[in-house]
Amino acid sequence: MLFSKAFILGIGLIGSSLARNLKEKQLVKTLVVYDKNKENLEKAKSLNLADVYTTSIEEGAKDADLIILATPVCSFGELAKEIAKYIKKGAIVSDVGSVKQYSLQEIEKYLNKATGTIVVGGHPVAGTEKSGPENGFTSLFKGRWCILTPDENSTPEAIEKLTKMWESCDMKVDTMAPAHHDKVMAAVSHLPQLIAYSIVGTVADLEGYEHKEIIKYSAGGFRDFTRIAGSDPTMWRDIFLTNKQTVLELIQRFIEDLVALERNIRWDEGDKMFELFKRTQKIRKDVIEAKQDQPEHEKRILEELRRKQA
Amino acid sequence: MLFSKAFILGIGLIGSSLARNLKEKQLVKTLVVYDKNKENLEKAKSLNLADVYTTSIEEGAKDADLIILATPVCSFGELAKEIAKYIKKGAIVSDVGSVKQYSLQEIEKYLNKATGTIVVGGHPVAGTEKSGPENGFTSLFKGRWCILTPDENSTPEAIEKLTKMWESCDMKVDTMAPAHHDKVMAAVSHLPQLIAYSIVGTVADLEGYEHKEIIKYSAGGFRDFTRIAGSDPTMWRDIFLTNKQTVLELIQRFIEDLVALERNIRWDEGDKMFELFKRTQKIRKDVIEAKQDQPEHEKRILEELRRKQA
Repeated sequence: MLFSKAFILGIGLIGSSLARNLKEKQLVKTLVVYDKNKENLEKAKSLNLADVYTTSIEEGAKDADLIILATPVCSFGELAKEIAKYIKKGAIVSDVGSVKQYSLQEIEKYLNKATGTIVVGGHPVAGTEKSGPENGFTSLFKGRWCILTPDENSTPEAIEKLTKMWESCDMKVDTMAPAHHDKVMAAVSHLPQLIAYSIVGTVADLEGYEHKEIIKYSAGGFRDFTRIAGSDPTMWRDIFLTNKQTVLELIQRFIEDLVALERNIRWDEGDKMFELFKRTQKIRKDVIEAKQDQPEHEKRILEELRRKQA
Repeated sequence: MLFSKAFILGIGLIGSSLARNLKEKQLVKTLVVYDKNKENLEKAKSLNLADVYTTSIEEGAKDADLIILATPVCSFGELAKEIAKYIKKGAIVSDVGSVKQYSLQEIEKYLNKATGTIVVGGHPVAGTEKSGPENGFTSLFKGRWCILTPDENSTPEAIEKLTKMWESCDMKVDTMAPAHHDKVMAAVSHLPQLIAYSIVGTVADLEGYEHKEIIKYSAGGFRDFTRIAGSDPTMWRDIFLTNKQTVLELIQRFIEDLVALERNIRWDEGDKMFELFKRTQKIRKDVIEAKQDQPEHEKRILEELRRKQA
């Protein structure tokens, strides 16, 4: 057993998938899960994801030696403040937030070495466009990277324990400074997601088009963007607002490049376009070679979930 | 048999998938395929996709009662000019081009009612990010829409025959004016594809980022865009250049909306963002309900192709 009592706050896609791993792989003796949404908590219970289901921070935080925040990042400060009232000395606090500087700043206002807590930021880079406990699954993390972002409130022992935990979830673990994490994720995750939301909005709002027609012919390419833009609205709103400066910078870079492409089209610069499209094709090959494409087992599970929920 | 001698020019993803259907479903007596790329023609031969493989327009066009252009749209004019030398009176000419006004304009310079040919524009809205005859498959068209865009050079009989042909490929067939087709496709296909190319270029070129790191963490969302941006560069260059005005207009609309979103982030307007993200989630549901999401059989086939080619 890695931990005696673990407490997961937020039983959504990531929280519930982690819970499944902790239980199935017997990494904790007692697992307590919290969600302020009672419906989610009921679903988690019917799926038998934990030992205790609660809407009380006190019940979960007391005597826990591991606390994981898996709620939208804007709630971290408030939750940490409450946790601080009940947490035992020496407990490890970590999270799964997609933005690390903001998350750690909020958590460490109330929980840090000075108050007797060990904090190690974490971000399992995994997920689907689905949310909620019913959409989590054990192999969600398989083959993906988990980024730990230790700082002055971390200890080598805590980093080691969390590394073991995520490795037991079949993840590869990497360590990074929080600021660097936020920069990399803005590029590979936050900007692409924002663009997907934006284009689905644009296409859906075009005047002079029938909504039915747009949906009917969405196999032309639009459907792929709707899949991405089907992701959890609260989670993403929080990410954009809390990694603001980097995201804003990248939007500007993106518009700059898009305008250049627009100009290529206007002035019939086919060669320049062709050159870009050849380069992006090569990048696709790099992704496949790095085995970071969506794996077959994940596609199968998503299809099954869809069938069950239809 | 629907046709006695059919001639397909261009044996890429769409051309080869159509060839597979024509042969397997015995819709034609003799199938001749042309490609100027000898390597593609050899591949088609080894896959046994047709009866005759040729680099001669004369050999294919002579006595054909159906000719289908399945090459990049910028080649249509040149090919039509050559076909006109050998085509028999009353033959039907169609195509699979993604841009219909330009395609028909080029084809009908040389082939039209006045010269004794029946022309019916066509666009099977199907495809994957793969290209080449080895990546085509029979069920590519299954459940998808084929748009026919008849004009003054079409006849009801020809429209009916082509409808039967595409329905035999398991497609649903719709009819539309060429201009309306180009407007709808700019929204559901051309703009999304351009955005995918653009963002993959932006992220890959960011200074101060390591290429390896971008690829390593691409599961954060970037990988989905690389998949789309892995599509055939020649085909897409031609589409953007030949549907220029509508694409340029939509790029401006997109930038307008993206800048509004940028402003939401800068001024902490979380509610406005949340509202948009909720709407896009609803649009995703519409796509799934209209059964226009990527079907399971297609995912399975793509995975098999990838394994074979690895």
